[in-house]
Amino acid sequence: MTMSRRLHVAIVGATGLVGRELLRLLEQNDFPLAGLRLLASSRSAGSRLPFRGEIIPVEETTPSSFRGIDLAFFSATSAVSRGLVPHAVEAGAVVIDDSKAWRLEPHVPLVVPEVNGDTLAHHQGIISTPNCEVTPLVLALWPLHQRNPVRRIIVDTYQSVSGTGWAAMEELRQQVRSILEGEECTPQVYSHVIAFNVFPHVEDFSDDGYTKEELTIIHETRKIMGDPQIAISATCVRVPVMVGHSLAVHVEFAHPFLPEEAREVLREAPGVKVVDDPSHALYPTPLMAAGGDYALVGRIRRDASSERGLALWISCDNLRKGAALNAFQIAQELLARNLI
Amino acid sequence: MTMSRRLHVAIVGATGLVGRELLRLLEQNDFPLAGLRLLASSRSAGSRLPFRGEIIPVEETTPSSFRGIDLAFFSATSAVSRGLVPHAVEAGAVVIDDSKAWRLEPHVPLVVPEVNGDTLAHHQGIISTPNCEVTPLVLALWPLHQRNPVRRIIVDTYQSVSGTGWAAMEELRQQVRSILEGEECTPQVYSHVIAFNVFPHVEDFSDDGYTKEELTIIHETRKIMGDPQIAISATCVRVPVMVGHSLAVHVEFAHPFLPEEAREVLREAPGVKVVDDPSHALYPTPLMAAGGDYALVGRIRRDASSERGLALWISCDNLRKGAALNAFQIAQELLARNLI
Repeated sequence: MTMSRRLHVAIVGATGLVGRELLRLLEQNDFPLAGLRLLASSRSAGSRLPFRGEIIPVEETTPSSFRGIDLAFFSATSAVSRGLVPHAVEAGAVVIDDSKAWRLEPHVPLVVPEVNGDTLAHHQGIISTPNCEVTPLVLALWPLHQRNPVRRIIVDTYQSVSGTGWAAMEELRQQVRSILEGEECTPQVYSHVIAFNVFPHVEDFSDDGYTKEELTIIHETRKIMGDPQIAISATCVRVPVMVGHSLAVHVEFAHPFLPEEAREVLREAPGVKVVDDPSHALYPTPLMAAGGDYALVGRIRRDASSERGLALWISCDNLRKGAALNAFQIAQELLARNLI
Repeated sequence: MTMSRRLHVAIVGATGLVGRELLRLLEQNDFPLAGLRLLASSRSAGSRLPFRGEIIPVEETTPSSFRGIDLAFFSATSAVSRGLVPHAVEAGAVVIDDSKAWRLEPHVPLVVPEVNGDTLAHHQGIISTPNCEVTPLVLALWPLHQRNPVRRIIVDTYQSVSGTGWAAMEELRQQVRSILEGEECTPQVYSHVIAFNVFPHVEDFSDDGYTKEELTIIHETRKIMGDPQIAISATCVRVPVMVGHSLAVHVEFAHPFLPEEAREVLREAPGVKVVDDPSHALYPTPLMAAGGDYALVGRIRRDASSERGLALWISCDNLRKGAALNAFQIAQELLARNLI
């Protein structure tokens, strides 16, 4: 198949962590670009970013930024997405949005290409890429679910500070230095010191005692797996890691599932790499996952608390497959399916 | 009640992290000491530690170290405990052992005083203090279990490097410095870099894919709760925290349990402090727990995956209530019950 069509692309949030990963992906891959517009908040507008040997200015995002744009990647806050995505769609762009603003809207496909790329066919201009914890979770669980239906998921997370952004990474660096020097440190980005600490607080709390991040995992996983009956519980925890989110997962299936069988299924699964040789201390870690394109899955074993259960451990680069790479793959999928 | 009896006490592993906490506890509290002998490996023998204004020499532990000793605290490796504890008992000492060597022996009480102090009555010279994750777990679950029987526990841990010892704390410090300077670092204590990383590997792996730490949680929790039927699963994870272990816990009970009711029960529970006001970003963290005497419990909420479930989050100082303080409280309990 030849893809002769070339696209005018915009990146909203181009100066952010995910925006820069998107730039790198567009640069490294043979994506059919006709033009590239870099957009950001007024604060970042005026800066310049290198791309394929050129220097591209970063412009402020406004409702009229999308004239002539075919494809817009949004990696900004929910408020920005909620406000500006409709303008991009009205201007004729297809939007791939990384925020949580549109993910649960019934008319918006929430897509991990390896899992539910076929739902792209019904898009109405907006496509969402899931939460950075949900993408690795469904990459690992979907192929198992095809073999033996998933009934219940309990997941506890170990989330890196890059999920929050630049400022959080800088705060972790500075706090670590201060503490090693025996100095006091006052948290700015988070409610608590993150250096040499962990806390069960990712995104705001809702009234039922769950954080929005935990509810996100519950609702997005059900939507992508296409099964609102799956029981899910989660505790989301921030850890002093720069890049790479990890998940301890306990899954119950309709029937017993041998760990060896699950390992075989996952070895064939797209987007997944099995790293599971405990006798050689081989299992996923965020340092190992960072910079890579896969959800790394290991510690695959019987769940000791359930005859129909498996326990496993996942690490994934939250900026790449957890965000930018997945959005980029959605764009590739749209091209391959002639949906843009 | 007057406790006129004064005891000749030995600490095996006096120079280690837990040994030093024990020294501090003996110093700060009105413990009826007749004498104190500090013991360690041949490597640490010859050093001196201050205690109540004196300087006490550290001697090498040998089978004959326990002559005249009434009470011996062991905080050493399992191999050391297995080899030397019988000599201490033969010499007439009561041993409170912090290693995993004796914990699951049927004739050895495995004791958290707030939970099962009454099992001390049957001791035959050896008493074990549980794994540093198990103590906070049973402190939180036991009072709930009295109200509504626990059927199933899923726990994922966030364990600090002090659980491994001095060398691991120093390794974390050095690795953090190296990484901030952009230098390479080679792990010595652990199989992987721990700075800015996490890994699901605490203690060795057994053949079924579980680590010994995970199996320890399963077996010790059942023994202390006195119910071999409780289904338990665990993933144990090392995180770059200096002191303080945390646990994400999902519990199923025989009947539904309202979060408000559980919170009330835990507010009255000995050894527990409820820290649970998410609207003010109040929940336990290891930094908050470090140096304190309690298992801090928060994030108490309905488990979203079970009608009979609760989810909660615990942080506890692994060196104090997780080890030294619990051992010390066992000694106090022995005195109070005239069992020594």
